Amino acid sequence: MQPLSNTETYSLGAISFVCLAILISSLRNNGEPLFDSLAISGLAFAFSYCIIRWSGDTFLKRGFKGRDMSKKQPIEIPEFMGVLPALVYLLALTAFVPFVFKSDIVEMTSGAGNKDDLLEAQQNETVRFLHLFPLEKLAPYGFAGFTLAAAILLGIMDDTFDLRWRHKFFIPAFASLPLLALYGIKYGETHVMVPAPLRGYLGERTELGMLYYVYMAALSIFCPNCINILAGINGIEVGQSLVIACLIVLNDALYLSPTVQQPHPAAESHLLSIYLLLPLIGVSLALLQHNWFPAKVFVGDTYCYFAGMVFAVVAILGHFSKTLLLVFIPQIFNFVYSAPQLFALVPCPRHRLPRFNARTGLLEPSVATFSDERPLRPIVGEVLKILHKLKLVRVAVDETTGRVTESSNLTILNLWLVWRGPLREDRLALEILAMQTACGLAGLWVRHSLALMLFAVDNRF
Amino acid sequence: MQPLSNTETYSLGAISFVCLAILISSLRNNGEPLFDSLAISGLAFAFSYCIIRWSGDTFLKRGFKGRDMSKKQPIEIPEFMGVLPALVYLLALTAFVPFVFKSDIVEMTSGAGNKDDLLEAQQNETVRFLHLFPLEKLAPYGFAGFTLAAAILLGIMDDTFDLRWRHKFFIPAFASLPLLALYGIKYGETHVMVPAPLRGYLGERTELGMLYYVYMAALSIFCPNCINILAGINGIEVGQSLVIACLIVLNDALYLSPTVQQPHPAAESHLLSIYLLLPLIGVSLALLQHNWFPAKVFVGDTYCYFAGMVFAVVAILGHFSKTLLLVFIPQIFNFVYSAPQLFALVPCPRHRLPRFNARTGLLEPSVATFSDERPLRPIVGEVLKILHKLKLVRVAVDETTGRVTESSNLTILNLWLVWRGPLREDRLALEILAMQTACGLAGLWVRHSLALMLFAVDNRF
Repeated sequence: MQPLSNTETYSLGAISFVCLAILISSLRNNGEPLFDSLAISGLAFAFSYCIIRWSGDTFLKRGFKGRDMSKKQPIEIPEFMGVLPALVYLLALTAFVPFVFKSDIVEMTSGAGNKDDLLEAQQNETVRFLHLFPLEKLAPYGFAGFTLAAAILLGIMDDTFDLRWRHKFFIPAFASLPLLALYGIKYGETHVMVPAPLRGYLGERTELGMLYYVYMAALSIFCPNCINILAGINGIEVGQSLVIACLIVLNDALYLSPTVQQPHPAAESHLLSIYLLLPLIGVSLALLQHNWFPAKVFVGDTYCYFAGMVFAVVAILGHFSKTLLLVFIPQIFNFVYSAPQLFALVPCPRHRLPRFNARTGLLEPSVATFSDERPLRPIVGEVLKILHKLKLVRVAVDETTGRVTESSNLTILNLWLVWRGPLREDRLALEILAMQTACGLAGLWVRHSLALMLFAVDNRF
Repeated sequence: MQPLSNTETYSLGAISFVCLAILISSLRNNGEPLFDSLAISGLAFAFSYCIIRWSGDTFLKRGFKGRDMSKKQPIEIPEFMGVLPALVYLLALTAFVPFVFKSDIVEMTSGAGNKDDLLEAQQNETVRFLHLFPLEKLAPYGFAGFTLAAAILLGIMDDTFDLRWRHKFFIPAFASLPLLALYGIKYGETHVMVPAPLRGYLGERTELGMLYYVYMAALSIFCPNCINILAGINGIEVGQSLVIACLIVLNDALYLSPTVQQPHPAAESHLLSIYLLLPLIGVSLALLQHNWFPAKVFVGDTYCYFAGMVFAVVAILGHFSKTLLLVFIPQIFNFVYSAPQLFALVPCPRHRLPRFNARTGLLEPSVATFSDERPLRPIVGEVLKILHKLKLVRVAVDETTGRVTESSNLTILNLWLVWRGPLREDRLALEILAMQTACGLAGLWVRHSLALMLFAVDNRF
């Protein structure tokens, strides 16, 4: 068991002490659930940090280990460690229940209850009212926990049994079933708003029916897998999840800020989203501390499934799946860019992570080589040459035959290295995360500006 | 991958076909949820049966294997296979949601809604009304799923990492937290009825407050661990879970039978209990087929946690934890009987399962031997001698010193062998299960008869 350093012990102790104090005072004085959520996330951070450190040896002993090939001395480090923060997350989710649910308030948008009482209560304590949940929200909360626990379960099965790619791809869809069942029973809304230019043809809203469930299942498949394939360097899986989580929280905050007229109809959904994301940020920060360059632990597929599923859950429950896709732009690009290799149009080596140059200590684009045994179709070669001219890939061409003999692997990490030249591993991760943050902020800005044009109204106002 | 035999393929195909037909017709005509639950349990049986058969080799390859020491040729068979039926159970729980929840009915016991409409609806379709759930029941259902998924998760961690006894003992308490949180928020009832003879002193009901939560957590620790320690011969973990599940379903049925005046206030809780237990019976039957003598697979701790937690969940949500204990009599006896060894009053060997006599092919009581290195305190020796005379243990005494040199291990399985003489493994399992059924039936009979005396009224009427 690796002990904590003194500094770590004191810092984590101080964080835990402050968070506990907030929670205890909140239980006594009916405090603000938003602060409680922050406090629980702080505790989740401290607990995850310790338990990851303490459990590394146990994981190594049980055979959960991997070799970090992008280091001069590739030593074996624990693999599959993301399961611990995921379990702590479930604990945090549970611990938060008594702080946020109260049986004596009714749902804002509910038709039941005495409207006059409701309005009065709203005027009296608009803010408090907003940040607490009525009992009707218990069901979505419970099913969210069910879904996330199922996602972690299936992630563990994947990490333990090394499932085949075509199986693991669909795993998140199974995990999302409880949420879809809840959605069908409790909400059942399957329409989408139609953008203004198309309203002449389709009406203001269009009914998708069963297609909407297929769409939600696809979203649950998409989020975890996208995070899972943008991987291969220290800290990138956790880092990108953190960036996405922060961007969604930022978007949620827009609906809850005091400048927006309250009670806003979408406020509760976005509040639930914040409550689900803050503990994710807490446990992910702890994991990132251990997984950042030079990594002491690997996170495993379980973490990717779990984090991706949290995003799918908040988007489905909060009805903002289109906004979600805006903060996934680099992942979507990476998926589309990878598709030729994933679907075997371009031969795909077993690993596509950037190549470590032991002489310089820097990462360089890794390449797929094409030979007579692994041929490249001529038409694909021509397309690659064009992409090369557009600087979207780097290929090597046999000068005598004019045929493409190798190409950089089609991942955003390799592409970034093609653009920027060799980089150290942490530098590459930082730049990718910065790019992701910029894309996400731009996406959100466009969403709230363009919404006015496309839908005639931004639902934030 | 082990294929199914032709007979198996046809039987499972036929079962699945009938069950699917029931479900499809039910979706079209708003069928009876009780039949749907049976149909889904049938499908869960068929699916578990196939997936256990197909996955054995994968588990062996990944190192989940154990040697069955009670056989003439102890071969290695897959261990930890109970995780598969547990996952199928979660799937079944999810698939059932659209069949049982309807948004257009209100809760029987709810104060909201128009009472006249409610009564009319009740008169019109008493039976249908009873077997469907209103949306308010979604939250308990979701949190039940959350809790069970968490129990399976922690069971997997145990099976994977071989946790220490003092850690694994408390695992179920963590898994039960979501349910306790829900209970606190949604019900919050922490009183118990006081038996009539004590009412003069304590009043009709007594408030337990926080103690009630400790009691529920203890119940969640107790049920899984009880099943886990009554183990060691083929089929006994699954068999006893099946017997318990059937006994609880029988008790539930008493509250739902047409002879009881409907709507009965406890009917909904018992209906939920049936809906949670039927799929458990389905997946357990499939597991038992593979785990019964001679076992093709071992079930692992995961199954015990999972099955035990299902019982704790239904009892907590259904407020019948005292009744639950009546169907756990053999397990309670086994726990109390084992306690001297569990708490090291009597030296405890690493394994306490009955000893296999390779010459006769029968099981005999296994013994703990006491030597100078593993001494027995004299007073404990005297108690063991008394128990020996009461035929509650079999000891061997050194004739010269008069000291106890060995004693049969303190489990109900060994005790049964002391009473009945050597038995074949399947015979022993059958007799224990028969005894358990008899005890459970007697317990339930006493409960519904004595209730009249102790509480002045049996809540069934």
